[in-house]
Amino acid sequence: MLNSIQESPLYPIVNPKSIAFFGASNNLSAMGTNQFNSLRDLGFEGAIYPVHPKEEHVQNLKAYRSVHDLPEVPDLAVLVVPTQIVSELLEECGQKGIRHAIIVSGGFKEMGSEGVNREQELIEIAIKYGIRFLGPNCIGVANPYQKLNTTILRYLGDPGFIGMASQSGSFVTQMFNYISHLSLGFSTAFSVGNEANIDIVDCMEYLGKCPNTKVIALYIEGIRRGREFVEMARSIIPYKPIVALYVGGSETGRRAGFSHTGALAGSDQLYDGVFHQSGVIRAYSIGELFDMCWTMGCLPEPKGPRVVIQTHSGGPGATAADSCGREGLELPALSHNTIKKLSPFIPNTGSIRNPVDITFTKNPMDYFSDIPTVLLEEDNADILLIYFLVPSQMVNRALEHMGLSKDQAIEQGAKLINAQCKSIAQLLEIHKKPIVGYTYRGIQEDFTKNLIKQGLPVFQGPERAVRALKALVQYYRLREEILANNSRV
Amino acid sequence: MLNSIQESPLYPIVNPKSIAFFGASNNLSAMGTNQFNSLRDLGFEGAIYPVHPKEEHVQNLKAYRSVHDLPEVPDLAVLVVPTQIVSELLEECGQKGIRHAIIVSGGFKEMGSEGVNREQELIEIAIKYGIRFLGPNCIGVANPYQKLNTTILRYLGDPGFIGMASQSGSFVTQMFNYISHLSLGFSTAFSVGNEANIDIVDCMEYLGKCPNTKVIALYIEGIRRGREFVEMARSIIPYKPIVALYVGGSETGRRAGFSHTGALAGSDQLYDGVFHQSGVIRAYSIGELFDMCWTMGCLPEPKGPRVVIQTHSGGPGATAADSCGREGLELPALSHNTIKKLSPFIPNTGSIRNPVDITFTKNPMDYFSDIPTVLLEEDNADILLIYFLVPSQMVNRALEHMGLSKDQAIEQGAKLINAQCKSIAQLLEIHKKPIVGYTYRGIQEDFTKNLIKQGLPVFQGPERAVRALKALVQYYRLREEILANNSRV
Repeated sequence: MLNSIQESPLYPIVNPKSIAFFGASNNLSAMGTNQFNSLRDLGFEGAIYPVHPKEEHVQNLKAYRSVHDLPEVPDLAVLVVPTQIVSELLEECGQKGIRHAIIVSGGFKEMGSEGVNREQELIEIAIKYGIRFLGPNCIGVANPYQKLNTTILRYLGDPGFIGMASQSGSFVTQMFNYISHLSLGFSTAFSVGNEANIDIVDCMEYLGKCPNTKVIALYIEGIRRGREFVEMARSIIPYKPIVALYVGGSETGRRAGFSHTGALAGSDQLYDGVFHQSGVIRAYSIGELFDMCWTMGCLPEPKGPRVVIQTHSGGPGATAADSCGREGLELPALSHNTIKKLSPFIPNTGSIRNPVDITFTKNPMDYFSDIPTVLLEEDNADILLIYFLVPSQMVNRALEHMGLSKDQAIEQGAKLINAQCKSIAQLLEIHKKPIVGYTYRGIQEDFTKNLIKQGLPVFQGPERAVRALKALVQYYRLREEILANNSRV
Repeated sequence: MLNSIQESPLYPIVNPKSIAFFGASNNLSAMGTNQFNSLRDLGFEGAIYPVHPKEEHVQNLKAYRSVHDLPEVPDLAVLVVPTQIVSELLEECGQKGIRHAIIVSGGFKEMGSEGVNREQELIEIAIKYGIRFLGPNCIGVANPYQKLNTTILRYLGDPGFIGMASQSGSFVTQMFNYISHLSLGFSTAFSVGNEANIDIVDCMEYLGKCPNTKVIALYIEGIRRGREFVEMARSIIPYKPIVALYVGGSETGRRAGFSHTGALAGSDQLYDGVFHQSGVIRAYSIGELFDMCWTMGCLPEPKGPRVVIQTHSGGPGATAADSCGREGLELPALSHNTIKKLSPFIPNTGSIRNPVDITFTKNPMDYFSDIPTVLLEEDNADILLIYFLVPSQMVNRALEHMGLSKDQAIEQGAKLINAQCKSIAQLLEIHKKPIVGYTYRGIQEDFTKNLIKQGLPVFQGPERAVRALKALVQYYRLREEILANNSRV
């Protein structure tokens, strides 16, 4: 175990002061140029030295013919060059004194026997010079806190709390857009590629120590160091949750993973056992992986699995109730006191059971303040799950029919929506119980966006909400098991 | 069985020439007023007669004190009034000669024993006058082809091909927004409420005959006439698919459904048997219900379950492969001929297995024309599943770096995207094989929106795409079973 994060070989890789970049040019469609531009677009503040055999300038920056010409020894080399010159350039980096590298180039172990030999060559050069490197066949890293992004797409949104280690580069770089829409962001994300020198366990170790990381997300096609994985995870779980998507459990997934990164996969049963022993929660899709990071990073610990559902529509209430039942979450009966406190708010067509179905409210604000307050005070319930219709259309229509112009209606409607969202978000702070929303509308609509910005996870459909809540409950259970076990030892 | 759709009691309910509307007022927050405004907002062209005990005008339309004062006998009455006056008004409608009604008001069987008596009263009045009615405790109907929408929210988008019968009004009216984002629409949608007089089987009969309906979607909390359900479904399946979401299979779902519409649910096992016997495909969420309608309504019959996956990113390829394996779809090996035709397009870092992983293409257009063409010509594959990254950011960035202004870059980028989307959509027409896209980006982004508008289903994540494809394959299998069985009889 590391004493401090600075001891990790990954520390200089995601906190470099200077970078030598191989493979950027003035050809805008080249992959290296795109990665180079991502780095500059985010405003990296250290020195960047493009190395190019012919150009004087690369994207308006002074270029160097060889790494030997650089005015200093950079902390990090990034290589996006043709397969056959990677080892030669890595050797030169070693000669120059560079000790950390990201090798983006592919054409190694994932290509079969010839590639295996080429990869072995890289490993030997690294040993010779004491180089630690990520890849080959990876997309690089993002550490938005350091304005660092070596991947192919622009980093969007703010730095966040999700630390990621991924055996697919796509699930780092192609997720920038996706998670920014959830008001989420990466703390640090690693694409590990073929893991010739640094693997996913090393990344877990770094992220476990990383102060910006609240939850760790893994994308796995095959674990190379099983025992170390389990030990590392168990040492992290007491402090932060780990969520993993594993795709090697089916025959088709196994084959695809192998031709992607040469990973050796195992059966679902084997991996389920490994994950359970490790305290790692398994996700079954990329969407679910980030759903789970969301509830785990944003919500307080639930005391138990008892959910109360608030809805104004019977169908969405029933689907949420059905989801809870299927996922093993409980719907407790409401106490006499809660029923008494709720009854002034519920018309006779509504239902004060669980789900609490308000049907139609005369004062729309009740749904966002008094009603959820009563439900959060219910001792029989640990979690509040609320259905949101996104009322903007009805609000705006009513305002228009009242004689306001379309613009006025939109402005007034926005004010009302803002008050409603604020009210819910405050409840999260006051009551310290998990609150989660679900809707059948897009999560990019104003109302949902506003709720999400205020810190409330809102999911499309109750099924996703309930699975993410189940993961939250599961994490604290597994954590307790591991803590109990550790204290026994 | 009906000889023609006009014989259905639902025909006048969704094709009325004139409507008496009870419960609209000049109070904009009242539910009846909202429903009344939905009807007028869509531009219903028949006569609308608001009936109100006091007002001279309701929402600027002449109001009538009593149904007896109306200048004609309307085809349909819509009642959104307090529970205790429903039976009195229904009686008056009967006296006036009205023979069809939608009873929105709640407070009947779903409320327990007292409500059961009130509902019985409605049934008896209906028998006395030969009235057929939907509800009580329903949200009404939408038939956008007739500009008819009696529900609480505005109908959005165009009329479509999904015929729906739902035991939740929310899953009619609250889905207008959702499905319009998928470029889908309802042909006719029924909220059946407590089914006191007309039930879901009657709706299936209507939708089976409805020429605008290509696929039938059901939301079920409990089936009241089991035998009739099976017989009706089996008579429809040879002509159009039926998809059903059932939420009564879990204990929590069963209880919620009962307090919603008083439906009596059965175990998952029982319903799975009923659905299989009926040829009905079961969905497990509302999202999935419409996903399945999408593939079934937009795509040609697949010859079998063999899928070829096209990607330029290994991780998304592996997740799709894993999904196919889990859902029982096959990933065939590509023929020698296909591999030969593909090789000029795939760099040495790519993979010409299945998934076909292009990695990086020099000519971006290849991904949208030549490569999928080769894959559609592959005799070993029945279905093409393509990963889309939504390339607008990279395209626009390259154009900006080339010296175009931001506006010019966006304009040129939009042209390129349009050409790419058109190219894929044409392949669907030429090859008559199902093509489905998946992405991790929002489906409301320009690129995806464009693809969807051109008729290609695009899903968020491979899991949803694969489950919707599986349903498509399943439908044709069940259809064959039922046809074989029918011809044997």
